[in-house]
Amino acid sequence: MRGTGREKYVGPLLPARPVASTFADMFSIPALNPALAPAIQHKIDHKTKPLGALGQLEGLARQICLIQQTLTPTLHQPHLLVFAADHGIAREGVSKYPPEVTYQMVLNFVQNGAAINVFCRQHGITLKILDAGVAGSFADYPTVIDQKIAPGTRSFLHEPAMTAQECTRALEAGAAVVREVAATGCNVLGCGEMGIGNTSAATLLMHRFTGLPLAECLGRGTGLDDAQLRHKAAVLAAAAETHAHLTEPLDILAACGGFELVQMAGAMLQAAALGMVVLVDGFIATAALLAAARLHPEVLAYCVFCHQSDEAGHARLLAHLGAWPLLQLGLRLGEGTGCALAYPLLLAAVGFLTEMASFESAGVSQAVTPPAV
Amino acid sequence: MRGTGREKYVGPLLPARPVASTFADMFSIPALNPALAPAIQHKIDHKTKPLGALGQLEGLARQICLIQQTLTPTLHQPHLLVFAADHGIAREGVSKYPPEVTYQMVLNFVQNGAAINVFCRQHGITLKILDAGVAGSFADYPTVIDQKIAPGTRSFLHEPAMTAQECTRALEAGAAVVREVAATGCNVLGCGEMGIGNTSAATLLMHRFTGLPLAECLGRGTGLDDAQLRHKAAVLAAAAETHAHLTEPLDILAACGGFELVQMAGAMLQAAALGMVVLVDGFIATAALLAAARLHPEVLAYCVFCHQSDEAGHARLLAHLGAWPLLQLGLRLGEGTGCALAYPLLLAAVGFLTEMASFESAGVSQAVTPPAV
Repeated sequence: MRGTGREKYVGPLLPARPVASTFADMFSIPALNPALAPAIQHKIDHKTKPLGALGQLEGLARQICLIQQTLTPTLHQPHLLVFAADHGIAREGVSKYPPEVTYQMVLNFVQNGAAINVFCRQHGITLKILDAGVAGSFADYPTVIDQKIAPGTRSFLHEPAMTAQECTRALEAGAAVVREVAATGCNVLGCGEMGIGNTSAATLLMHRFTGLPLAECLGRGTGLDDAQLRHKAAVLAAAAETHAHLTEPLDILAACGGFELVQMAGAMLQAAALGMVVLVDGFIATAALLAAARLHPEVLAYCVFCHQSDEAGHARLLAHLGAWPLLQLGLRLGEGTGCALAYPLLLAAVGFLTEMASFESAGVSQAVTPPAV
Repeated sequence: MRGTGREKYVGPLLPARPVASTFADMFSIPALNPALAPAIQHKIDHKTKPLGALGQLEGLARQICLIQQTLTPTLHQPHLLVFAADHGIAREGVSKYPPEVTYQMVLNFVQNGAAINVFCRQHGITLKILDAGVAGSFADYPTVIDQKIAPGTRSFLHEPAMTAQECTRALEAGAAVVREVAATGCNVLGCGEMGIGNTSAATLLMHRFTGLPLAECLGRGTGLDDAQLRHKAAVLAAAAETHAHLTEPLDILAACGGFELVQMAGAMLQAAALGMVVLVDGFIATAALLAAARLHPEVLAYCVFCHQSDEAGHARLLAHLGAWPLLQLGLRLGEGTGCALAYPLLLAAVGFLTEMASFESAGVSQAVTPPAV
């Protein structure tokens, strides 16, 4: 049974949004029913192409069919949610960029100047920018959705990044925005992020939730040099030591997470619970999913892994999850850019399944045993 | 300077189409002028993202800028040409599918039932189907462009697949259709193919033009089992022996090629000569490019390698060319499907370069040296 014991949750902490009655309900994620799998495979195998010739697009089509429980899947109202937040750990010199860049980049999103704006526009994906916990006010920018938990986390070098209550509120806030998006008819959703310092949080979460050595989870983030990387490694080793006694997933998430990471985890869980296709971006987003999957493993079946980031730990994290991403373009930007760039491949998977002719309908001969010479 | 000296041409071999004056002129491909490279890099590096964070899209943007000799590239009227032809070698039992599938699949293209129809429709790519040498008449299907050299090649097991004159006509026919397409304003063009038996021709061309052992060039095509693969290997080893005395690229191409392969080579050369971005699909298309590059190496600078096929030899062929493909989706279908699926990534590369804000315009702080803790 999932989500038991959470019935103590007493009600919405962000009263402006509709919320599920309990966490258990909100994140009740059904396992995918495999009954349709043979019919899906039959349909794929009778398209006018050699068996398996569309490679990963065939697996993608199977997954979308199973999520939607249909042989004629459709993708509607794609959304990309970019969660932004600041991190106390950024004051420890773990990033190439100063913390104020988080705020500045949110304004860049609002003004349509960032990569994710370009890529979402290109593919007709609705982009929403969420203040999950930025150290600065967006009162003058009404398109920034305010679900700020606090103006940045505390530094997890010496104390938990957030309280248990803040963590719960962040999960719920991430879920609430997905319920609003679902009301538009959206059935495919990606999450992106912006937060100077958040590769550090993601690295620590990966280390704790996979059990892999810290060094295998660590990377250069926005572009640290060797000396800076050694400094980041030392800071994270100390932080890992600080929180080594924690064992409960929610406690680890609160101690090592960030507000955008936790809201993303909540958003992914809610999206899966609503039967959406969940697009997973790069290292940070995958770390958020990892945390989400520790709470509700069923979420993974709804996830399409969009891109393998150039951030060093990401390949190992994907391998840990048994994931094979659609793209390997060497991006290391976040913002949900991998989701937006991979979205046309989902359309292609649905397109070939629903629009291609079958051997029978096209009058094309199927495979034969070649004659001996 | 492009295209000078074409006035010497003495008459069309395919009278219905305009043609260039001589082969040498038709395929006069200028090396890319690198003078703009520093300005392009400056523009990329001042976009609101960490240095290099858009990975392969940055290299793609650089290449498109250099091909178009501008800092503000655009992509217009994308076209995909699918060349179809039959192969004498198909009678030797080297394919999982009977030879009549070439003809049937062309009808499937005409009726919009194939994967390439779906993917081109998805991305607004104009699809043209060309009969380069199919064993069957398309007189009742006016949308099939007739540039049939002959109804299939001869089997290259014992004799050259085509004569030198047929090879020249096929190169010219491929080039001619590109000149027509260019008149629409097209500046980005992909080539696809359909031809039962054509992985055998491509394998032999790869073997001869790279010098790699036949076994490293060989693959399962549309899905041969182990015994069938051994048979294909034996047939190709005998064919390689038949033509081992040839040394001139055009002679090798005529002996081991196919009409769709040669027309693709001509199309790619002409597209480069006209300054187009050339989209390169899977194994067959890359083998055609390899032949084209033996005639005019400058063509390579205009090529975007779209997809690494699951066909065994393709990874080695790409490595031989120093190419790093945009997609690795395990496709092994041909038809130009890799080109169509990768096209949105070209739009993304042009989009980020021309639409993203710079650090200056967005007021975003650039990288700093993190403070010591």
